[in-house]
Amino acid sequence: MDKIEVNINMTCYPMPCMLIGTMVGEKANFMTVAYFSQVSLKPPYILAALDKEHYTNAGIKETGAFSINIPSTSMAEVTDYCGLVSGKKFDKSTVFEVFYGKEGKAPMIVECPYNLECKLVQIIDLAGDELFIGEIVAAYSDDRYLTDGIPDMAKVDPLLLSVPQMAYLSVGPQVGRAFEMGKSRIKKG
Amino acid sequence: MDKIEVNINMTCYPMPCMLIGTMVGEKANFMTVAYFSQVSLKPPYILAALDKEHYTNAGIKETGAFSINIPSTSMAEVTDYCGLVSGKKFDKSTVFEVFYGKEGKAPMIVECPYNLECKLVQIIDLAGDELFIGEIVAAYSDDRYLTDGIPDMAKVDPLLLSVPQMAYLSVGPQVGRAFEMGKSRIKKG
Repeated sequence: MDKIEVNINMTCYPMPCMLIGTMVGEKANFMTVAYFSQVSLKPPYILAALDKEHYTNAGIKETGAFSINIPSTSMAEVTDYCGLVSGKKFDKSTVFEVFYGKEGKAPMIVECPYNLECKLVQIIDLAGDELFIGEIVAAYSDDRYLTDGIPDMAKVDPLLLSVPQMAYLSVGPQVGRAFEMGKSRIKKG
Repeated sequence: MDKIEVNINMTCYPMPCMLIGTMVGEKANFMTVAYFSQVSLKPPYILAALDKEHYTNAGIKETGAFSINIPSTSMAEVTDYCGLVSGKKFDKSTVFEVFYGKEGKAPMIVECPYNLECKLVQIIDLAGDELFIGEIVAAYSDDRYLTDGIPDMAKVDPLLLSVPQMAYLSVGPQVGRAFEMGKSRIKKG
């Protein structure tokens, strides 16, 4: 065994990237977030961790709503921009074409191939961060990104963040069938 | 605008995959998890969402420790297996070569190119799930997976899950520099 200790601040797993959207006052605001995950299938809950300093937090608390917008690799530059500048100083309401879903409270990004409209369920206070848990009330896409009516990851072409390399990555080829390829091992014993 | 509503249960963003490790009684157990994310940089906190029914939960509560083990694409079959079968019925303690870190409480997987040793900080009860928040106390890798002493995502070659396609994916080529490529847009105004 040749395991060695490495820097704990360069977490080495591929983090998906999204733009979190919310109204802050009268204006839509979008911020890039890589600390997020679905946390429950039924009900469909998704969690985003935001530093308490962020401009977005107050908007989510005020409106009780936020959106998760998945950018494609072709949007890497603007996604990076939305992570670099704060809504406190920069008006990001006109960066994208905005649409609203069935609840009408959370701004969503037309240019993003996949959008989740979320209703705030719970906020957890955690050291310097706030964890916002939302229920997914609707998901949106566009025919261009679907195969047989289902969003197709290859067509969505999402962005990943590599923290150690400080780089955005794309999604690569398929490796195998999930919930299927391990079955042969069950039979073996 | 051609946005249409799609199925909310086929969340279309690339979910990183990991094997969560814990002792359950006298035995090491490992389960595949795609619902997880780092949630704080300082302190380094990571969160995993586990259905309350899982065998792993009791072990984390008892020991106050768990590990996050990042499998490479070459481990897709065994990773899938560890998500298909429960420790309640299958002894997964001998599936991998196991090592222990500085705290010595959480079993980790030698075959995984990257491992995080975590100390339980908080458990959040959320509908049918429990959210386990752990502090990363150490990270482990192997010279083979490092470039200039830093874990290299391309060498780690981690697995992603596409829920809509029910498929495992690999990580693709680099798109651009994070926290850098958006700067040109700031200058533009």
